[in-house]
Amino acid sequence: MKRLVLLGATGSVGRRALELVDQFPGEFRVEGLAARGSKPELVADLCLKHRPRVLALTDPDAVDAVVRLLPRPHPEILRGAAGLVTLAGEVDAEVVLSAIVGGAGLLPTMAAIRSGKKTVALANKETLVMAGSLMTAAARTAGVPLLPVDSEHSAVFQCLVGHNRDEVHRILLTASGGPFRRMTKADLRHVTVEQALNHPTWKMGAKITVDSATLMNKGLEVIEARWLFDVEPERVQVVVHPQSIVHSMVEYVDGSVIAQLGVADMGIPILYAFTYPSRLPAAAERLDLTRVGALTFEEPDAERFPCLTLARGALQAGGVAPVVLNAANEVAVAAFLGGRIRFVEIAELIERALAHVPARGLADIETCVHVDAETRRAVTGWLPADFSSASQATGRNAT
Amino acid sequence: MKRLVLLGATGSVGRRALELVDQFPGEFRVEGLAARGSKPELVADLCLKHRPRVLALTDPDAVDAVVRLLPRPHPEILRGAAGLVTLAGEVDAEVVLSAIVGGAGLLPTMAAIRSGKKTVALANKETLVMAGSLMTAAARTAGVPLLPVDSEHSAVFQCLVGHNRDEVHRILLTASGGPFRRMTKADLRHVTVEQALNHPTWKMGAKITVDSATLMNKGLEVIEARWLFDVEPERVQVVVHPQSIVHSMVEYVDGSVIAQLGVADMGIPILYAFTYPSRLPAAAERLDLTRVGALTFEEPDAERFPCLTLARGALQAGGVAPVVLNAANEVAVAAFLGGRIRFVEIAELIERALAHVPARGLADIETCVHVDAETRRAVTGWLPADFSSASQATGRNAT
Repeated sequence: MKRLVLLGATGSVGRRALELVDQFPGEFRVEGLAARGSKPELVADLCLKHRPRVLALTDPDAVDAVVRLLPRPHPEILRGAAGLVTLAGEVDAEVVLSAIVGGAGLLPTMAAIRSGKKTVALANKETLVMAGSLMTAAARTAGVPLLPVDSEHSAVFQCLVGHNRDEVHRILLTASGGPFRRMTKADLRHVTVEQALNHPTWKMGAKITVDSATLMNKGLEVIEARWLFDVEPERVQVVVHPQSIVHSMVEYVDGSVIAQLGVADMGIPILYAFTYPSRLPAAAERLDLTRVGALTFEEPDAERFPCLTLARGALQAGGVAPVVLNAANEVAVAAFLGGRIRFVEIAELIERALAHVPARGLADIETCVHVDAETRRAVTGWLPADFSSASQATGRNAT
Repeated sequence: MKRLVLLGATGSVGRRALELVDQFPGEFRVEGLAARGSKPELVADLCLKHRPRVLALTDPDAVDAVVRLLPRPHPEILRGAAGLVTLAGEVDAEVVLSAIVGGAGLLPTMAAIRSGKKTVALANKETLVMAGSLMTAAARTAGVPLLPVDSEHSAVFQCLVGHNRDEVHRILLTASGGPFRRMTKADLRHVTVEQALNHPTWKMGAKITVDSATLMNKGLEVIEARWLFDVEPERVQVVVHPQSIVHSMVEYVDGSVIAQLGVADMGIPILYAFTYPSRLPAAAERLDLTRVGALTFEEPDAERFPCLTLARGALQAGGVAPVVLNAANEVAVAAFLGGRIRFVEIAELIERALAHVPARGLADIETCVHVDAETRRAVTGWLPADFSSASQATGRNAT
């Protein structure tokens, strides 16, 4: 029985993970759950079903509402960002699933790594984008494997298993191309939030769905892959594959390409991260290629989707640039979702932030937290008046 | 420096293998070559270039013509089927490449296995079809890995590396569908040899090209996969994929599918079998999926292509049935290539042979050789008069 701690239990990855726990009785035991607390009934339901020993609620204002609904005896309650770090680092478990969206996942994920957990399953790409060099160094020091939960990186990981890392010619991340793949640059100026949230192949949370529409999601994934698989940035390439069946590929030096395919179900990569190096027989829908129709591939269009280029530039620049990229993107996406800016302004704000925040090295997590906060303040200041909800910094998020 | 013995040096796989030896100076040394001898100039050229210590010529009548052309001092010459077995079993080498077409490869391949070579690289699928249980048992006893060179089985092998064999849900062999994929049953009665030899995606020898057109090639590969990967026959499935880019796939119990892709170049699987578990950087053309266009998949049509069903039936029946299937197919394909029978009669002759030759167990290689000869005699007897060139039995081939 593997003991799990789930950070981000009420998000789309967290809920899918808990469905898997239900689906395989006797395989997993939920030791700890973390959620913001904004959906008290859902949190109470999850506690009733999974009986975690510890519950972390990052929004302190939500604690009373949740506790009122909890079954007795209720789990130990931890509060705020500090509670989240305590849960990730101190609750005994074989796997910590890091599935909090955005930079807020950074400190708890680092705590899980430093505590020497058997496995840290990473669904939060932003943390690697912000602090990839520090996180991977910490993971090496602690001897903790970072197992990817992102479908693309899980695919790459599965295509690397058993093969020699030094014989990788390139990693090919597939991108659906998002809902605006065929849209002209002029039309992109007028897309609505509703259109951006209508992803053609994956059902995901709002932030990552918008990132898919801008292709920033793929840009973040290039950075994530660079760190997760320790490859030079130029060896990580992107190919648009609208059907989202081939989840990614690895090309080896001899010209052989290994790919991982499957239906678009986050259950597969989540379960693999939980059970690696084994697999459990999933009841999920199976891939039938004869019913899928054609699989197609095309080059991404850097001109219409500048976020991919911005991400590559930040990776190339190194130091704090990816932190700036990520923080600016989070604020900009929240502003777009809130109706404050237009879709194309997301990339414009990120570009402005990268030019504005001074370049420097990334010596430690504190620098990371500081630059994250600095960028959020700057970008928030550039937004139309009275917008503030995305301005919270990583280190002070939900405290 | 890996020392190689190449059986079938003048065939399409053998010549591609020797091109690779040229391409990687210092990596391989050719210790022994075997050929029929029907192309004396080619054999002499290969000896001049690769300086093998030993040369086996299976056609004794060809020896004089070849020896006259050989550079001095010429290699030790072995003659006939016995010489081939001596070369395979007694010449010291790390890898024996078994690339002789058809049942004639059986005894030398068994000799290579029993001699305890480091690796036997199998390009000859017919030997596994005939004697899969005996060969895999001998390989286990001798501790010799059988590495597939067939592009599909090399793909499967690459998709299994690093994953757990007992978690395989099914193996998906891809088939191009051959040149007659879209042809009606009525039109199949009138296809010519020239049409059958016009394979849409692969350049290969005549026998395997006709097998691709009848889909018998895929039937033989199902049997080959059953033995090579030790899986139940019903777990080996076939999907038609006309572009020949995905060379095969393995679906695991969790729904994850691992595929191997590449350009249609036998150099990739040959080289992998030579260098496994490493890879060498090939100068070959690389796969560019954005230029390939769409990858499509469809079910094979068992009604128009009965050979696939015949092969599955023979595998199911077990014992000598696959030997009968293979021998009847070899005689029938030779008869078709010789203009003696029509394309659709290939399947009819095989079906008749399977009904005619008595079922029995396959206790040893001698039974295999005997049933092979018996089937060839029977099927040859059913051909239009004065046809004889395909009637040679495995054990007496080219002696």
